[in-house]
Amino acid sequence: MRRLCVIPGDGIGQEVVPVAVRVLERLLPDLQVTEAEAGWDCFQRLGQSVPEATLQAMRDCGAGLFGAVSSPSNAVAGYRSAILTLRQQLALGVNLRPVRSWPGLSDRSGVDLLILRENSEGLYVGKEHMATADLAIAECHISRQASEHIAQRASEIAKLRTSRRITLVHKANVLPLTCGLFRDSCRKVLDAHGLSALVDERLVDVAALQLVERPEEFDLIVTTNLFGDVLSDLASHWGGGLGLAPSLNWGQGIALAEPVHGSAPDIAGSGRANPLAAVLSAGLLLRYHWQLIEQADRLDRAVEGLLRSMGKADWGKHTTRRAEQELIARL
Amino acid sequence: MRRLCVIPGDGIGQEVVPVAVRVLERLLPDLQVTEAEAGWDCFQRLGQSVPEATLQAMRDCGAGLFGAVSSPSNAVAGYRSAILTLRQQLALGVNLRPVRSWPGLSDRSGVDLLILRENSEGLYVGKEHMATADLAIAECHISRQASEHIAQRASEIAKLRTSRRITLVHKANVLPLTCGLFRDSCRKVLDAHGLSALVDERLVDVAALQLVERPEEFDLIVTTNLFGDVLSDLASHWGGGLGLAPSLNWGQGIALAEPVHGSAPDIAGSGRANPLAAVLSAGLLLRYHWQLIEQADRLDRAVEGLLRSMGKADWGKHTTRRAEQELIARL
Ligand SMILES: CC(C)[C@H](C(=O)O)[C@@H](O)C(=O)O
Ligand SMILES: CC(C)[C@H](C(=O)O)[C@@H](O)C(=O)O
Repeated sequence: MRRLCVIPGDGIGQEVVPVAVRVLERLLPDLQVTEAEAGWDCFQRLGQSVPEATLQAMRDCGAGLFGAVSSPSNAVAGYRSAILTLRQQLALGVNLRPVRSWPGLSDRSGVDLLILRENSEGLYVGKEHMATADLAIAECHISRQASEHIAQRASEIAKLRTSRRITLVHKANVLPLTCGLFRDSCRKVLDAHGLSALVDERLVDVAALQLVERPEEFDLIVTTNLFGDVLSDLASHWGGGLGLAPSLNWGQGIALAEPVHGSAPDIAGSGRANPLAAVLSAGLLLRYHWQLIEQADRLDRAVEGLLRSMGKADWGKHTTRRAEQELIARL
Repeated sequence: MRRLCVIPGDGIGQEVVPVAVRVLERLLPDLQVTEAEAGWDCFQRLGQSVPEATLQAMRDCGAGLFGAVSSPSNAVAGYRSAILTLRQQLALGVNLRPVRSWPGLSDRSGVDLLILRENSEGLYVGKEHMATADLAIAECHISRQASEHIAQRASEIAKLRTSRRITLVHKANVLPLTCGLFRDSCRKVLDAHGLSALVDERLVDVAALQLVERPEEFDLIVTTNLFGDVLSDLASHWGGGLGLAPSLNWGQGIALAEPVHGSAPDIAGSGRANPLAAVLSAGLLLRYHWQLIEQADRLDRAVEGLLRSMGKADWGKHTTRRAEQELIARL
C-alpha cells in the first residue's frame, strides 16, 4: 500500500492537485491519501508557511504532491517560501524536470530531455548579509556530497533511457572552485558507473542558447540549483510552456511532485486551471520514485492522447473538469 | 581626432578585427589606431594575458576593439581570462548587448532589445575559496554604487529610444538582500529620472522563458552580471546567433567593443570567419561611446543591406574578405 501526502497550497493549487490525485487513485486503487497544508494562506492563519505537521506527514508518507503557493510581493518578516522550506527540511536534493515535445502542440518534434537540477545548495543556501549599508554579499555553496548525490541519480536514470547523453552545465571558466568541484565530483561518479564516454560539458550561457537553437541534441542535463532553475523554465517552452511543466523534488526514499507553475491568482476559482502539469508531476512520482513504469506509461499516454485531441487549441477553451473527465476516460 | 586601441587577441580575432577597423576608418577618416596584445598566445610569450602596456594603451585611447581570446581548457596557474581582466582593470562597469531581428535572416521580426549587463561584480568578483576539502564557496557581491551606475546608463539610453520599457531582471524571491539591493538601487535612479512608469520587473527564470516566447515585448533589460551573461547568449538567437552578437564594455569615458563569439580555433585561418559581430560592436562604439549617431546608422544600414542580400544562405558560403568588400561598398 502506497501513501501520498497532498499539499494543494494556494490559488489554482487547490484545483489542479485534486485532479492529479484522482488520476493517481485510478491507477493505484489502494493509494492512501493524507492532506496537509502549506503556503501563504496557511502562513496567515498559523504563522508558518510549512507547519511541522506537514513535514511530519511528508516523512510518514514518503511521497507527496504539492500544488502551488502564493508569495507576498514584498518581504514579510518570518515568511519563507513554502517550497524552499520543504526542499530543504526534507533533504530533497535533486529536482527532476523533464521536457518533451507533445504531438500537435509543439512546433518542434523530437525534444525529449530531462534536467536534473541540484536542489539543496548553490545560491539557495540562504546565506546573505549586508557587509556595509552599500554592499550585499550572497554565498554560493557547492559541496562534494550534494554534487555526488545528483550524479548518482543521473547515473541511475541514464541507464533507463535509450538515448544516453549526459551534459554537465556549469560556469567553471569564471567559477573554477565551486563549478569545478561540481564538475569533478559529477565526473567521478559517472566514471565509476562506466558512463564517462557519454559525458559532455557546456558553459551555462552556451547551454541556454543551444537549448533555444537545438533542444533535440540534449538528453540528460545535470546542473547546479540556480542554473537549473533558469534552464528548466526556458526549456519548458518546447514542452508547451510552464502550464505543462512537471517536476519532482527527490531525496533518499522521499519525493515531492510539483508542477512548476505558480498559484495563478488571476484565474483561481474560474474552473479553467490546466491540471496537466500537476498530473504529469504525479506521473514522475510513479515513474521515478515508486518505479511503477507501467502505470507511469499509462498516465503519459493519457495526457498525450488528450493533448493530441485538443490540438493547438488554446487551453482557454477547456475547463479543469473536462480535462479530468477526458484523462480518466483515457487511462 | 579619435583614437582606437585594437586588441585582436587569438584565433579569428586576428581576422575579424581588421575588417571592423577598416570599416571604422572609412567612417572616421582621421581615426588613429594603436595595436595592443592580449590573450592566450600573449600569455604564453609574456606570462600575462593582459600586459600593463595594453591597459595603458586602452587608457590613452579611451576606446578599444577587442577580438576574441582562447582559454586553456584546464586551469593554468597565473592565467586569468583576458576579457575579465580588461573589464575589471579598466572599470568597464556596464556591458551593452543589443539584439535585433535582421530582415531575411530571422524567423521572427520585431525584436529590438538591449540588454544592459552589470559588468564588474556579482559572481565575477573572483572571491572563491574551499571552506573544507569538500565544500567550495563563491561570493556574489552586489553594491549600491555599481547598481546605480548601470541604472544611470539605462536612464540615458531609455531617453534615446522610441519604445521605452525597462525590465529589471533579478531573483529577489530567493536572494532578497543582493538582488533586493540591485532592484532598489536601480529603481531609485530610474525614479529620479522620471522613468518609474516605464519600469517593470521579472524573475530571471521567467525572463528566460519570455525571451524565448515573446522577445518582442522586451525593450531595455537591466540585470546583474551572470544573469546578463546567460540571457544575452540566449537572446542572441533572435539576432542570428552568436556569430552576429555585438557588445560594448562601457565605463566612465572609456569603452571596449567586443564581439560575443569566441576565437573559433576550428575555423581560424580559413578565411571564412564572419566579421559582422566585430563590425556591429564597432558600431556600438560609434553610437554610444562617441555618440556619432549618423555614422552608427550608416554602419548598421550597411550590415542590414548585406544580410538582406545574403538572405538565409548559410554564412559558410561567404568569406571574410567578400563580406568586407560588400560592407565597404554599402557604406
Ligand atoms: C518559487 C521559487 C523559489 C522557485 C525556485 O527558484 O526554485 C521556482 O522558481 C521553481 O523553479 O521551483
Ligand atoms: C569568456 C567569459 C568569461 C565571458 C563571460 O562570462 O562574461 C563570456 O561568456 C562573455 O559573455 O563575454
